[in-house]
Amino acid sequence: MHEIHIGEDLRERNIEIAEENRKILRGNGVVTFNLMSAPGAGKTSLLVATIPHLTDKHRIAVIEGDLQTSRDAERIAALGIEVFQIETGGVCHLDASMVHSALHTLDLESIDILFIENVGNLVCPAEFDLGEDARVMLLSVTEGDDKPKKYPLMFTESGLLLPNKVDLLPHVEFDLEKARHEALDINPKLEIEEISCKTGSGIEAWTDWIERFCETRGGS
Amino acid sequence: MHEIHIGEDLRERNIEIAEENRKILRGNGVVTFNLMSAPGAGKTSLLVATIPHLTDKHRIAVIEGDLQTSRDAERIAALGIEVFQIETGGVCHLDASMVHSALHTLDLESIDILFIENVGNLVCPAEFDLGEDARVMLLSVTEGDDKPKKYPLMFTESGLLLPNKVDLLPHVEFDLEKARHEALDINPKLEIEEISCKTGSGIEAWTDWIERFCETRGGS
Repeated sequence: MHEIHIGEDLRERNIEIAEENRKILRGNGVVTFNLMSAPGAGKTSLLVATIPHLTDKHRIAVIEGDLQTSRDAERIAALGIEVFQIETGGVCHLDASMVHSALHTLDLESIDILFIENVGNLVCPAEFDLGEDARVMLLSVTEGDDKPKKYPLMFTESGLLLPNKVDLLPHVEFDLEKARHEALDINPKLEIEEISCKTGSGIEAWTDWIERFCETRGGS
Repeated sequence: MHEIHIGEDLRERNIEIAEENRKILRGNGVVTFNLMSAPGAGKTSLLVATIPHLTDKHRIAVIEGDLQTSRDAERIAALGIEVFQIETGGVCHLDASMVHSALHTLDLESIDILFIENVGNLVCPAEFDLGEDARVMLLSVTEGDDKPKKYPLMFTESGLLLPNKVDLLPHVEFDLEKARHEALDINPKLEIEEISCKTGSGIEAWTDWIERFCETRGGS
């Protein structure tokens, strides 16, 4: 087997804008989560399953990153939630400047929790700090248990891993213990909650995680 | 709902190198397929299921694109096939220059069919011509039937769409007819073969498609 290695691009400018976003968001008492996953792992379904459990206590807004369509944004808007749609026009990730534009438009004083749904992609989103407080990664069990070792940066950068679609475990070859072990090898601080947006299992544990996170941050 | 649009980068230089790759490959009688999909849709499993059906009549080689690991390349090498591993070091797609480096090392005169397994990503790989004869796209039915409208370029650029993991259809909400219809709306010339690398269903139709393709190109 032969090999070549290609150097990695660094995006220094993004870091500055992300820090500015973070200052603005924290200054307004907004707790911000950046949701990342491969395409079709269930980010929008997770938000649809999650938001109704939070709206009693928190004012929620969503930034929806999408390549071409506003389908996801429409699913969220149907919940009566303020949605800012970023159509990236083919760019495969959100960056801090895209989110910065959204911050000028959203009424931040009336938001407690901001979810940013990133573009479906296991690679580039992990390289771009958006100014969030925490990164949450979904991994559908249909994608295979080799993903931590193959896409390590995504696991390194996330605070919480949500293995999703666990209702499909009887039908796929996915060793949850192996995936958990390899993910923790990469990032020993990673928290892990198994969920199924379809059956609702694990959604309470995930919303409890959000509540604990908000309390720790002195948020809403 | 508010919206912003971000401009798309164009990568002109890639086109020239891709044309050079194409000239080299065709000049050596190599028929080349570029396999693209989201992470975990089954590209490597497809190659493992496919190659043994082709080795009687054709000499096969594989270029494996991967972010960090050589796991996929090892699975292919275990079949006794020449594999060139491109570790992109975090870059989320293969480009023509990466493939060009591989062409200097592979013994092209002893290859009839070259499979290039792209990095798992539904976005950027579609923007980079590698010099292939055809692009083949896998779509796991676990990813959702909204993917054609959400990732249109991938469907526009592919000659063949392989909906994979159809054994899971009873357990997921995926409307195959809707996905087929929306994919053909985007690309009316797209051919579609449903497969399951797990059960083997559709693999014969796919290898027949390869054989027909090679005959039409005057290949092996």
